Amino acid sequence: GLDMLLVADLVHPGDSVLPDPNLRWLTGFSGSSGAAIVGPGVATFVTDFRYIERVREELGGFEISQAERQLVPAVAKLLRGRVGFDEAHTSVKVFEGLQEELDGSVDLVRSAGLVERLRRVKDEVELERMREAARLADQAVERVLEPGLAGRTEREVAGAYAAAIRELGCEPSFAAIVAAGPNGALPHATPSDRVIGEGELVVFDHGAIYEGYCSDGTRTFAAGEPDEESREVYDLVKRAQQAGLEAVRAGAIGRAVDAVARDLISAEGHGEDFGHGLGHGVGVEVHEAPRLGQRSDDVLEAGNVVTVEPGVYVAGRVGVRIEDVGVVTEGGYENFSLTAKGLRVVG
Amino acid sequence: GLDMLLVADLVHPGDSVLPDPNLRWLTGFSGSSGAAIVGPGVATFVTDFRYIERVREELGGFEISQAERQLVPAVAKLLRGRVGFDEAHTSVKVFEGLQEELDGSVDLVRSAGLVERLRRVKDEVELERMREAARLADQAVERVLEPGLAGRTEREVAGAYAAAIRELGCEPSFAAIVAAGPNGALPHATPSDRVIGEGELVVFDHGAIYEGYCSDGTRTFAAGEPDEESREVYDLVKRAQQAGLEAVRAGAIGRAVDAVARDLISAEGHGEDFGHGLGHGVGVEVHEAPRLGQRSDDVLEAGNVVTVEPGVYVAGRVGVRIEDVGVVTEGGYENFSLTAKGLRVVG
Repeated sequence: GLDMLLVADLVHPGDSVLPDPNLRWLTGFSGSSGAAIVGPGVATFVTDFRYIERVREELGGFEISQAERQLVPAVAKLLRGRVGFDEAHTSVKVFEGLQEELDGSVDLVRSAGLVERLRRVKDEVELERMREAARLADQAVERVLEPGLAGRTEREVAGAYAAAIRELGCEPSFAAIVAAGPNGALPHATPSDRVIGEGELVVFDHGAIYEGYCSDGTRTFAAGEPDEESREVYDLVKRAQQAGLEAVRAGAIGRAVDAVARDLISAEGHGEDFGHGLGHGVGVEVHEAPRLGQRSDDVLEAGNVVTVEPGVYVAGRVGVRIEDVGVVTEGGYENFSLTAKGLRVVG
Repeated sequence: GLDMLLVADLVHPGDSVLPDPNLRWLTGFSGSSGAAIVGPGVATFVTDFRYIERVREELGGFEISQAERQLVPAVAKLLRGRVGFDEAHTSVKVFEGLQEELDGSVDLVRSAGLVERLRRVKDEVELERMREAARLADQAVERVLEPGLAGRTEREVAGAYAAAIRELGCEPSFAAIVAAGPNGALPHATPSDRVIGEGELVVFDHGAIYEGYCSDGTRTFAAGEPDEESREVYDLVKRAQQAGLEAVRAGAIGRAVDAVARDLISAEGHGEDFGHGLGHGVGVEVHEAPRLGQRSDDVLEAGNVVTVEPGVYVAGRVGVRIEDVGVVTEGGYENFSLTAKGLRVVG
């Protein structure tokens, strides 16, 4: 008998729909059940029947080992010595199963964050994919805006984005957020069947995956002439975003960059309406390290790809977010999001 | 120093992209970071800033508690006595974090599978959603077939399916598989840029999510007149599928139902070419309990929703899979997949 039951999803705090991003980054594997074992003189990939053909196509440089669908016993047989494992992405069940198979013969060492650390600095191949992902996402947005915004539902606009991104030969990196009028004040709104009203601001947060790498960007458009409050909030967010962009460079600390934009918003009395961090890293995941936020000690390095995305959400009335993605350089930031940021009134 | 590094995705063996399905089933929550604590006189839901508005809309009957983005301390404060937790979906890190916060004051009991057990038998509201999901998926397929198949790429056809399902107001339950000719022999192929050839068989595995519930279905079409081998393989799979359907009823055992279809395929020399189970449960996840497979001891109950999907995959040449989804009844099976199964030659 239980006194309580805990049902929780505490394992994957991110928004990504990709199966284990560390595994994908390390190996190129796009499936959902596999294990890589790497070390001096060792590079073995274990998977089951369902993925064996795909693995032979996708993975270079790995010895491939086919196992039963339950991979743990096969993996255990391949381990020796002190073996790092990711305690943040290994379930208690798998861990205990491994321990039982290993019977004390191997020392499992908690190593969460190690691969994430390696992923932070992108190489030129990765950067080129991310530039292309951002370019394709911007192109898809243009197609979506063609028939105007007022009179369409949020869901229709979000669906048109998904269709456009697929026509361009890639996939969305997450389900686009299209949030108009008061819905724009919910920072993680889901597109609804609400019809976008004339003159409402529309927060449009969207991304693409190109060859395994994500983009993430937000523009806020006006569906016809907006009111004065909307214009003021937009202008404030635009200035904060520009200030944030100018604060990004190698050596800057996450919370210092966040503060530059946040202080500007707070000075105009909207500090309480900016309830999330200024930005985050992007790569094989839409959200990864480093972070730009009030509690972030991350030090930016050249090659980090980060977003800069302040927002002001006036509950029940209006929301604005403007988000660019780009790469940190020694002297500043190369912005991958090239569409204009003046308030655009969509006919 | 490490001797080896293990990078693995062993936590989520399913194909679902939904955040924790048990949490979603229990609460209706569609976000990715939250915890429900239920028991006699207790129903509390813990989430962070990002989801608090959504939770207020989506969740009835729960007391809502807002926490920091790191939920573990807030969750720990709410636990008392013996508390079941899902060791298959709780990371070692979260578990150890909970233990540290609890400091021995609570007895954490491994309870994986408990909620999955409750999810197996669907009620009428759930069944109605699943019938509708299957109906919408079938309708989307019809739209996709209109311009024919030969001459289009697998990726185009898969993209057209995603667009059609969104036009119908829902989402795909997984990325559709469109696999033509020799690609059809890869049971988990990803749609490629290969152009579908005249007369090739095309495996089209697809699903929809309607109000949180999934469908899953496969048809194999001919893109013009197929050759003799294709017709023979198709006919064999069709007969095996029909035999499988007729073996489903409350009280039947998973492996016995599997054997009915498998024996028929083996008798014609294709036993080795049918490398997966006959079927699986469907619900808030595309793949859930019970299973119809060679090692399944699951006893079917009225209200289980299962697929019946034999396949024959002749490596390098041709693949056929036919899959229906429906509900187990006392006397048999109510099939939700209503499109015809005679070999359809698409112009």
